[in-house]
Amino acid sequence: MELSAREIATYLNGEVEGNPDTKVSGFARIEQATQNTLCFLANPKYESYLYTTGAGIAVVSKSFKLRQPPSCAVVWVDDAYRGIATLLDIYATLNAVQRRGREYPSRVSWRAKVGKNCYIGAFAYIAKGAKVGNNVKIFPRVYIGNNATVGDSCILYPGVTIYAGCHVGNSCILHAGAVIGSDGFGFAPDENKRYKKIPQIGNVVLEDDVEVGANTCIDRATMGSTVIHRGVKLDNLVHIAHNVEVGKNTVMAALTGIAGSTKIGEGCMFGGQSGVIGHLTVGNNVSLTARAGVASNIKDNETHMGFPNMPIGLYRRSHVVFRNLPDLQKKVQQLEQEISNIKSKT
Amino acid sequence: MELSAREIATYLNGEVEGNPDTKVSGFARIEQATQNTLCFLANPKYESYLYTTGAGIAVVSKSFKLRQPPSCAVVWVDDAYRGIATLLDIYATLNAVQRRGREYPSRVSWRAKVGKNCYIGAFAYIAKGAKVGNNVKIFPRVYIGNNATVGDSCILYPGVTIYAGCHVGNSCILHAGAVIGSDGFGFAPDENKRYKKIPQIGNVVLEDDVEVGANTCIDRATMGSTVIHRGVKLDNLVHIAHNVEVGKNTVMAALTGIAGSTKIGEGCMFGGQSGVIGHLTVGNNVSLTARAGVASNIKDNETHMGFPNMPIGLYRRSHVVFRNLPDLQKKVQQLEQEISNIKSKT
Amino acid sequence: MELSAREIATYLNGEVEGNPDTKVSGFARIEQATQNTLCFLANPKYESYLYTTGAGIAVVSKSFKLRQPPSCAVVWVDDAYRGIATLLDIYATLNAVQRRGREYPSRVSWRAKVGKNCYIGAFAYIAKGAKVGNNVKIFPRVYIGNNATVGDSCILYPGVTIYAGCHVGNSCILHAGAVIGSDGFGFAPDENKRYKKIPQIGNVVLEDDVEVGANTCIDRATMGSTVIHRGVKLDNLVHIAHNVEVGKNTVMAALTGIAGSTKIGEGCMFGGQSGVIGHLTVGNNVSLTARAGVASNIKDNETHMGFPNMPIGLYRRSHVVFRNLPDLQKKVQQLEQEISNIKSKT
Repeated sequence: MELSAREIATYLNGEVEGNPDTKVSGFARIEQATQNTLCFLANPKYESYLYTTGAGIAVVSKSFKLRQPPSCAVVWVDDAYRGIATLLDIYATLNAVQRRGREYPSRVSWRAKVGKNCYIGAFAYIAKGAKVGNNVKIFPRVYIGNNATVGDSCILYPGVTIYAGCHVGNSCILHAGAVIGSDGFGFAPDENKRYKKIPQIGNVVLEDDVEVGANTCIDRATMGSTVIHRGVKLDNLVHIAHNVEVGKNTVMAALTGIAGSTKIGEGCMFGGQSGVIGHLTVGNNVSLTARAGVASNIKDNETHMGFPNMPIGLYRRSHVVFRNLPDLQKKVQQLEQEISNIKSKT
Repeated sequence: MELSAREIATYLNGEVEGNPDTKVSGFARIEQATQNTLCFLANPKYESYLYTTGAGIAVVSKSFKLRQPPSCAVVWVDDAYRGIATLLDIYATLNAVQRRGREYPSRVSWRAKVGKNCYIGAFAYIAKGAKVGNNVKIFPRVYIGNNATVGDSCILYPGVTIYAGCHVGNSCILHAGAVIGSDGFGFAPDENKRYKKIPQIGNVVLEDDVEVGANTCIDRATMGSTVIHRGVKLDNLVHIAHNVEVGKNTVMAALTGIAGSTKIGEGCMFGGQSGVIGHLTVGNNVSLTARAGVASNIKDNETHMGFPNMPIGLYRRSHVVFRNLPDLQKKVQQLEQEISNIKSKT
Repeated sequence: MELSAREIATYLNGEVEGNPDTKVSGFARIEQATQNTLCFLANPKYESYLYTTGAGIAVVSKSFKLRQPPSCAVVWVDDAYRGIATLLDIYATLNAVQRRGREYPSRVSWRAKVGKNCYIGAFAYIAKGAKVGNNVKIFPRVYIGNNATVGDSCILYPGVTIYAGCHVGNSCILHAGAVIGSDGFGFAPDENKRYKKIPQIGNVVLEDDVEVGANTCIDRATMGSTVIHRGVKLDNLVHIAHNVEVGKNTVMAALTGIAGSTKIGEGCMFGGQSGVIGHLTVGNNVSLTARAGVASNIKDNETHMGFPNMPIGLYRRSHVVFRNLPDLQKKVQQLEQEISNIKSKT
């Protein structure tokens, strides 16, 4: 793929500054780019690189006001991040490995159904009663349990495990080692403090367009379903417990954990290593910073931080004082001394 | 399975309120239940649903004092959670898929021993010298290394890896992707700050009735054994480092990490994302809240919170003040002002 | 292997105290050792065991000043931990299972290249264009994607997944379930708050002598490479996001997460469950305590704690006051009262 600045501007509905005939044949990060590559600038942290980058072309958001002439041709667009996403999409589509057909040995029960144009890698296992849609890519070493279903156009990377009875919607991407439908963590202690397992007879439902990161685990419900709604994106090593519900278009960064029966709203953004305890309700469009640990319900549109969680503004103000607590303590001691002095005088 | 309220009361040694002939054929959560399903009420948070649930029958703990008539037949029992566990157990047993025999291709060394009535899924691997007991279910893609042993009646879900020389007791359940016996994280720095690997020649021992969550990792000991005692339950994505010992009937929620050589007592309950640093001793019946990070030994029967950990009562009292630190700081500033005023007057 | 204290001293360039003819044939932890085993003492926490251990021989660092006669022969060395590492290395080498050759069924593309003296376990998959060096151990169920490369003398334990186009250097060890090259977590929201996937066309590069723990995940770069430099050691369940760079000889304990585009220096030591947010720079030789959450750049040679991170000394001093915040609050209230009294008198 070789594209000129003019062509890129046409694709992205943008405007060229500099030589419109500059050509590039690949992508690079702005700080590492070379002459025949294209970079982008969306994050203000990287602005200074625009004046020194070796790239041939930079796609830049119109919101930037340049303080120097850029060192390359610029295609101005409304949103550089979305623009580059579009170009990467074209690139990835053109370069995608066409996988189709079945490799051997693999095991597909004669009582399973597999749609058209699928790829089934070696050592994949599709159990009886399972149903797989059309255009699905099942990489080697994927396991799809009894009566589980997988919708159209999904990609299941190596080592994905889908337990019996779970449902994966259309256009879902499951990364290597993801586990869908392991037993919820439910035990009842007996008189001797030994734990008796509570059978987990529910399942997991992933709606359409869900992406699940590598080695992320989503437990099946005790009864009913653990539900991940449409458009949810989960990063690597995330834990979703039994009977949780995650609202559509919510994203969670790596190492986040949601405890049992908690309900998360739509459009939420959870930072890495955040968590929510069980049986809570988190509203729509809630943001959690990295490390936030939620121990109480949160209303729509709030941003929380800390553990137990506080609204971010309050947390930050308290943390500023925390950083200077020894000073505060010292002041209090001085005040005590001064008052004692005053009292001794009067 | 269709059961009447009267039959359920007989099973659970409970008492019926309402029509004893009401029949149900499945389970549901109290907030989602329909007429032919059974629900339960053990957590006070859900009490209000008892007055509106569509369920046919609810199993309810006797400790509840109802404030309205329930909307369905009620079977009163001592402990609803344990009662429902019993019923789910019966249900799960009746509905269990009977797996037995060996699927191909799978690889069992002629120098391995496998007991009676086992299931060995396709792509499973049992290395030489390994020993597997009776009635074991080995799902596809399980790996059992050289000289490792697995007791009777275990279930190893897809993708479980048991490294060479590790021992799994009877009636253990290992969920998908669990790793038993990876090398402990031991390195000795040389003069140039390069790390030299310390061979980890020990192993892991899981005693009977241990459940290990999906993608949970338990490292082998440097020497001797990492030991998980009888009845321990580990949730998903838990990390147990080398030479750790976990006492019987201890449970740990997801994303918890225990660092090397630490000894955890019996009957402990650790919340999600909690952790304990290395070379510590945590007593029996210790509870950690979610996120607790233990940096010092803990005595029996204590509950800790925060990092570095504090007894829960102390932590909470400090945290209440933390939430209002800006106010406290302001007050101190006012006091300084007032004292300055007083001093200028005198 | 049976070795005398004299022979061990010769190997380790140490000095014997006690009977130089004492013989041992195995290793044990100092608190559990029996007569024919060797133990070591490097951590002061375990000193008291030296006076009671049942071991035949203890390897002890010269820095220890004994307060009693030891209960066994002692080999004094400069660094007991490194000494025992050397002995374990000899032991492990002598006892290593010699794996070589290819087991079936396994799948190696005719367009892949595999070097000499390799072991390829059953159910392993090496895709087209992949290149594997000499003396590599590929355990069962390993997946090496299209055009990926693996250097000489690597060990890939069961269930490792290396995505297409990623590079693993020489002498790397990847533990079970490790995932190299899953897609970075990159999405651009559209007008309706739905997330559009940004194709991740970069890769992951592991340089030589890197060890990756069980179920650890390293994401591929959006463009360019996520780079793990020479000698880095990652524990279990670690998350490394896209475009991260980790400097040589840096070690990270379990459950640590590094967010996207962050650059970590050389020689760093990160405690368990620590984390660094995205787009930051952490200097060389930086230490993070367990649980540290880094939200701002850190200079060389600093040690940080807490979230948001603070230099360890400052954090500890603030935390000491935090533990007594209720007292501080009380004092302030008393001061208020006293001042009010003073004012009413004047």
